[in-house]
Amino acid sequence: MTAPVDSAERIGAALEHLRTADIRVHCITNSVAQAFTANVLLALGVTPSMTISPQEVGSFVESADALLINLGTMDADRRAAVDVALRAAHQAAVPWVLDPVLINRSEMRREAAVRLLRRHPRILRANALELGVLTTPEDDVATFSRTHGTTVALTGAQDLVTDGMRRFALGNGHPLMERVTAMGCAATAVVAAMIAVESDPLAAAVAGLTVINVAGEIAGESAKGPGSFSVGLLDALHGLEPLDLARRLDIVEQKAV
Amino acid sequence: MTAPVDSAERIGAALEHLRTADIRVHCITNSVAQAFTANVLLALGVTPSMTISPQEVGSFVESADALLINLGTMDADRRAAVDVALRAAHQAAVPWVLDPVLINRSEMRREAAVRLLRRHPRILRANALELGVLTTPEDDVATFSRTHGTTVALTGAQDLVTDGMRRFALGNGHPLMERVTAMGCAATAVVAAMIAVESDPLAAAVAGLTVINVAGEIAGESAKGPGSFSVGLLDALHGLEPLDLARRLDIVEQKAV
Amino acid sequence: MTAPVDSAERIGAALEHLRTADIRVHCITNSVAQAFTANVLLALGVTPSMTISPQEVGSFVESADALLINLGTMDADRRAAVDVALRAAHQAAVPWVLDPVLINRSEMRREAAVRLLRRHPRILRANALELGVLTTPEDDVATFSRTHGTTVALTGAQDLVTDGMRRFALGNGHPLMERVTAMGCAATAVVAAMIAVESDPLAAAVAGLTVINVAGEIAGESAKGPGSFSVGLLDALHGLEPLDLARRLDIVEQKAV
Repeated sequence: MTAPVDSAERIGAALEHLRTADIRVHCITNSVAQAFTANVLLALGVTPSMTISPQEVGSFVESADALLINLGTMDADRRAAVDVALRAAHQAAVPWVLDPVLINRSEMRREAAVRLLRRHPRILRANALELGVLTTPEDDVATFSRTHGTTVALTGAQDLVTDGMRRFALGNGHPLMERVTAMGCAATAVVAAMIAVESDPLAAAVAGLTVINVAGEIAGESAKGPGSFSVGLLDALHGLEPLDLARRLDIVEQKAV
Repeated sequence: MTAPVDSAERIGAALEHLRTADIRVHCITNSVAQAFTANVLLALGVTPSMTISPQEVGSFVESADALLINLGTMDADRRAAVDVALRAAHQAAVPWVLDPVLINRSEMRREAAVRLLRRHPRILRANALELGVLTTPEDDVATFSRTHGTTVALTGAQDLVTDGMRRFALGNGHPLMERVTAMGCAATAVVAAMIAVESDPLAAAVAGLTVINVAGEIAGESAKGPGSFSVGLLDALHGLEPLDLARRLDIVEQKAV
Repeated sequence: MTAPVDSAERIGAALEHLRTADIRVHCITNSVAQAFTANVLLALGVTPSMTISPQEVGSFVESADALLINLGTMDADRRAAVDVALRAAHQAAVPWVLDPVLINRSEMRREAAVRLLRRHPRILRANALELGVLTTPEDDVATFSRTHGTTVALTGAQDLVTDGMRRFALGNGHPLMERVTAMGCAATAVVAAMIAVESDPLAAAVAGLTVINVAGEIAGESAKGPGSFSVGLLDALHGLEPLDLARRLDIVEQKAV
């Protein structure tokens, strides 16, 4: 795969790979997001697992192709599960992705995020408020990415992906994505699935966000509100064709500092 | 806002306020209800948060505009979370609403409800079976409301809202609302959101139940069953117009004893 | 009810019984599956309850007509809840059904399944990978069923139900059932509901799987992907008519060894 990371060819190939390679993603995620996240992964042909039990999470992670750690509802049990999961991921060389959801509203979550950043997630997916509590005002995103050795996927009306060297602005998406719970959590799960088939974290983040954003655009065209939008998004993820990507792709490479 | 609490003008203004004022509602609710409740609030433009971790629930409640406490799946962790949340709500003057779900089937929940009633929820939302275990046979709902200093929103085929002085019968709604899980829990969440924009608890309860009931009526007109009904309800909440309220409103004031 | 267990007449009568008899099913199931499972039961007119709190699960089980135990996310709390629930089920003569979800990926779950099999679930619902870790290579399913005194409902592209004496192959269903999370868990919940109205476990398993499979076929005819499929399945369960069963039924009796 030598096509550029922002090409429909490259993203389409990663999508096809997801659908055919029996990829497993283990998700330690909050209880609000679990079912929707699982359905988003299943719509893409990926097999999710979701246990947070410290006694068994290790065996699930060992046999997974990628790991998602989402900090929503971070109680004592989940903290224990995260430690076990990361040890298993380290030993089995399973790549992992961090979603520091709402760390701007919980000091305990902020501390957890700071601690987890030191353990080198391949990708950090956050919105501006969440990223804001991890950076100093003078830091830009590319500097943050280099300092922590993690690709950053910063989502919002427009998404920004950078590994500190390269930087891409992603314009696809739909406003109703903000009116469905766990949409960001599910987007991070798709990014985690992509890291299983794309060894370049920047390419994985670009492909993962683009796939869910383009599915959101397609769903938005016939949605009557957030209920039918959410249903349509799952349908669109399942039916997404390379041609949809080629037609709709809106990615711009930017200077990375 | 001096329009009568049962007028489309008053309810429409509260709905508009919800959509524009960046309202946050923290929900301590059961795991079955979390995602649907979050989606109902998001469809109305309200920002939900859902953590039940005792270590962080305080900071979420402090920065919220209203608090929902739902007694479903009331394990040790949730009990601890409720205590922390209520202390935070008290200190930050955040109004709260109680949903004693299925206390008729669990002595532990009944005891929790009795204990929580002493801490003065602005509104109690329950069905007849649930309310039945809190009242004595000779008590009517208005007496109960006065005794406990809480507005009661009693839901069923017809809903009844009273603060002990005033009393309204709400006729809107749809039979399929009983065939979707967490519909009552979500209704209470809408009532909790309304208490953030309506300082009169009776007005908040009338507005919250009416908004979800009218959305239910609209959804029921094109639903093919409970699946499409639930999707349509989220769409209808998102698209609800003052005109829909004006056209469909079915509220009757009654004598409150 | 003396019609054959594989007849539309028998299955239709059980379905009608579910809808009219105010059946309650208590589900100890994983957090990913809770909401969808509850919605599937509600679509059939059955009342679900879902608490896993050891302090109150006993009173819910005592007043239920059937109990589902699903091993997903089997943490310490859920293990305690399972023990309390089984004691209550035993004392109140409430039949129960076991779903050993993903025991092929967790040694802890496998051990739990082996332990629970000794307590005589009326029905075990599993896929081939899950059943594979409980059987020896030389065992066939009918032998397994006789040895453990449990009816086996083995699901896959084609489902197989046997009580060790009789054996039926069920051909209904739709490929999208595998692309919606918790579909298997929900199918087991329908089987659990059926055991409340069908005293013959084999008949209950055949009826439960057939009802959800036929609803899946109906949903599949108009679905655009897994999102609309899942919505359509709930609608189809709610609207399922005896004529749908009669027209679509695809059950073949086989030799049982």
